[in-house]
Amino acid sequence: MNTEGDKPLKVAVLGCGVVGSQVVRLLGEQSGDLAARVGAPVEIAGVAVRRLDAPRDVDVPAGLLTTDALGLVTRGDIDVVVEVIGGIEPARSLILAALENGASVVTANKALLAEDGPTLYEAAEKAGRDLYYEAAVAGAIPIVRPLRESLAGDKVTRVLGIVNGTTNFILDKMDTQGSGFEEALEEAQALGYAEADPTADVEGFDAAAKAAILASLAFHSRVTAADVHREGISDVTSGDVRSATDMGCVVKLLAIAELNATESGEEAVSVRVHPAMIPRSHPLASVREAYNAVFVESEAAGQLMFYGPGAGGAPTASAVLGDLVSVARNHRQGTRGVGESAYADRAVLPMGETRTRYHVAIDVDDRAGVLAAVATAFATHDVSIQTVRQEGRGDDAQLVVVSHEATDAQLSATVEELRGMDTVREVTSVMRVEGTDE
Amino acid sequence: MNTEGDKPLKVAVLGCGVVGSQVVRLLGEQSGDLAARVGAPVEIAGVAVRRLDAPRDVDVPAGLLTTDALGLVTRGDIDVVVEVIGGIEPARSLILAALENGASVVTANKALLAEDGPTLYEAAEKAGRDLYYEAAVAGAIPIVRPLRESLAGDKVTRVLGIVNGTTNFILDKMDTQGSGFEEALEEAQALGYAEADPTADVEGFDAAAKAAILASLAFHSRVTAADVHREGISDVTSGDVRSATDMGCVVKLLAIAELNATESGEEAVSVRVHPAMIPRSHPLASVREAYNAVFVESEAAGQLMFYGPGAGGAPTASAVLGDLVSVARNHRQGTRGVGESAYADRAVLPMGETRTRYHVAIDVDDRAGVLAAVATAFATHDVSIQTVRQEGRGDDAQLVVVSHEATDAQLSATVEELRGMDTVREVTSVMRVEGTDE
Ligand SMILES: NC(=O)c1ccc[n+]([C@@H]2O[C@H](COP(=O)([O-])OP(=O)(O)OC[C@H]3O[C@@H](n4cnc5c(N)ncnc54)[C@H](OP(=O)(O)O)[C@@H]3O)[C@@H](O)[C@H]2O)c1
Ligand SMILES: NC(=O)c1ccc[n+]([C@@H]2O[C@H](COP(=O)([O-])OP(=O)(O)OC[C@H]3O[C@@H](n4cnc5c(N)ncnc54)[C@H](OP(=O)(O)O)[C@@H]3O)[C@@H](O)[C@H]2O)c1
Repeated sequence: MNTEGDKPLKVAVLGCGVVGSQVVRLLGEQSGDLAARVGAPVEIAGVAVRRLDAPRDVDVPAGLLTTDALGLVTRGDIDVVVEVIGGIEPARSLILAALENGASVVTANKALLAEDGPTLYEAAEKAGRDLYYEAAVAGAIPIVRPLRESLAGDKVTRVLGIVNGTTNFILDKMDTQGSGFEEALEEAQALGYAEADPTADVEGFDAAAKAAILASLAFHSRVTAADVHREGISDVTSGDVRSATDMGCVVKLLAIAELNATESGEEAVSVRVHPAMIPRSHPLASVREAYNAVFVESEAAGQLMFYGPGAGGAPTASAVLGDLVSVARNHRQGTRGVGESAYADRAVLPMGETRTRYHVAIDVDDRAGVLAAVATAFATHDVSIQTVRQEGRGDDAQLVVVSHEATDAQLSATVEELRGMDTVREVTSVMRVEGTDE
Repeated sequence: MNTEGDKPLKVAVLGCGVVGSQVVRLLGEQSGDLAARVGAPVEIAGVAVRRLDAPRDVDVPAGLLTTDALGLVTRGDIDVVVEVIGGIEPARSLILAALENGASVVTANKALLAEDGPTLYEAAEKAGRDLYYEAAVAGAIPIVRPLRESLAGDKVTRVLGIVNGTTNFILDKMDTQGSGFEEALEEAQALGYAEADPTADVEGFDAAAKAAILASLAFHSRVTAADVHREGISDVTSGDVRSATDMGCVVKLLAIAELNATESGEEAVSVRVHPAMIPRSHPLASVREAYNAVFVESEAAGQLMFYGPGAGGAPTASAVLGDLVSVARNHRQGTRGVGESAYADRAVLPMGETRTRYHVAIDVDDRAGVLAAVATAFATHDVSIQTVRQEGRGDDAQLVVVSHEATDAQLSATVEELRGMDTVREVTSVMRVEGTDE
């Protein structure tokens, strides 16, 4: 229990960029409320940056800025370190030094957690300190805490997340304005939703880091970014988006973590990021613009969804400060909150064994026997067909096939075979289908 | 810290009905996971019921059932008490006895918390024990914990909740099937979404209890059910629903808690439950059937929404067990989680001073000067008009007025005056408008 009276809690903030500047601002503006909620005043002990003289979005109190981040975290009187520098190094070394020096840590660093989380979790465990990271997944949206605490008495079976605002913005524009990918990307860049080099977002790297963190939390297992099958949205065409519309679906980039059965009947984690068609009636379908949302299925609770802004300085700082209050309370009481738990230690399923559904649009010759030939290709690979729709005639003839669940390997072998068939002119669209009831 | 090794945690479950039976089932089925997450085995010490021989949805292990709830909670070795009896007494006395006897408590009892929460919070504080109640608001949806912990570094300004599944089901049917209220209510009853006596749901009592709890949490103040302005949905007509559709809106029963400025410029809490029109583009508009959702606006995070099943045995039990794991962990460590906090101690604003917007549909005589007369009635009460739309001609002439924000008192005085006017045949629909940007 609290033996320190109202001794202020000393917080070191590492980084004062988009997120850090808002953390510093809120620490100032909310200081009365924070003190009431923590049970002691919260004081900024220092703010580490790379360049002392860079312009900042906040007035950092004189004397607090320093370029010696390591000196700050190891100076001996720091209770909580907030790491909002980003990237692997020096963030990792600084977090490890903070924990070794008895500080608790709050970080927004998805890249580091997805690459080397276990090193950090073990260091926190060893130090008996907290390492909280609500802001690392889906910005302001409370999702880490609900998964770790609210659902601690339930069994999560699937997580489907729209966890990258840039790609959601692009796909939303393709859907609602009929834009092509390039045009929508340019619009996103013009509005500041996409960076000049959009690779990390568009190719799904950012979403993959979050998928790894979500999978680890949901399934109490260790999943890193390297385990995540990743496909971006740069190959999504206007035709795919129209095909989705025709099916009553919309295309979203999803971060998916789910329990699948292995061939020997054990439960393994399938974790992947790829564009997928989901029904327009699905709660995720109405997530527009750059918003994020995480849809969670669990055995007892059923279907839950958490929605909000997935990025931005102030929203992300809100999540950081929520963690800061928890961590500060624990620190004062000499306790720890819920730490990482990997007790279930489930294996990660190779993508080929993951069970999914495919939507395949095929330009075909309009002659007798084509449908039978296509159906045979599916049957050969043990993929059962849910619906086939024929569209157009003559030169415009198209078959649109939606499969039942099969392994991804069976499905891609089927598509491979279709591509080699005489009667098939072109396979114009191949996309996974998610969020349906089967 | 844990000084008790792996000594099992003893849980007393009070009530074994819709929710209690699922709590007992999950405690059995999830025991391995629960032990891993709590850090010790969790053991059911007893299950209190009213009738020993009643049929149950779960096989309660022999010897655990008892009708002596008080004997169970006071027997001396109980670590955690789960109260899922409901109602005021004996639930309140049992919770107080549990806390006095050193147990931590998890409850789903919104009625009790809304009526007499402070008595319980003080008892928990005094005993140094936890009192958790995630299941009391919006069933399975994690909302208490996000408000209390995730947003602890932010300032919540408004909460809009669809927190009653029965009324959402009825309004959804009126919207999508064009049903009248009675017809939709009968459908809800036939499907088990509404009780034979639907008063508590339909007249907004259930939502008002949840509104009080949400307001207390969001604004760190004490708000009870008696503070909540409450209007149900039994007067909502097909005409209102159609008017909403014409405006691009949908009618929902909302539990609203927001910060409003008093005339002297202080911040006070407005807390109310009433049907309202919200734009179809609002995230709450797509909450269908009996689902619940809570939409939260805060200064830094912006707009968040939490969605899921608001009732049902298993979903509610999921929330209870999430709390149980937290409380059990704290109990073992000899600490407490975040307790109730009423430090902000804000006043509750009378409904008359609450600022809202009105949608008013008026059957008028189709002659020159009618619009001017209606506009004058609004102006007299200092209510500014956002839009007026004239519909129909002759005997069918109707004016549809949407006001800007004004106090509820000004707005109802305006409607009163309209009702007395010569040129006004009938005020056919009056409804508040929420979730718009003004
Ligand atoms: N931006 C978002 O919307 C968002 C959302 C969720 C999570 N996050 C995560 O939050 C973290 C920070 O993101 P951000 O957007 O705020 O980044 P940012 O704007 O680039 O800011 C990075 C800050 O770190 C400082 N810095 C860089 N190297 C340093 C070093 N060696 N020592 C001390 N300080 C150093 C920089 O100093 P100078 O200012 O002097 O250059 C800058 O203030 C990242 O992990 C990111 O993934 C961001
Ligand atoms: N049902 C939901 O979907 C839902 C959702 C959210 C929150 N809640 C809340 O959860 C609580 C329980 O609701 P419920 O639907 O499970 O109620 P329920 O089905 O009516 O069950 C009540 C249980 O309490 C027992 N009981 C009644 N009086 C008792 C007494 N004096 N001593 C010992 N046991 C007694 C009953 O025993 P017998 O079985 O022997 O009659 C029964 O098992 C309520 O506070 C409710 O508001 C319910």
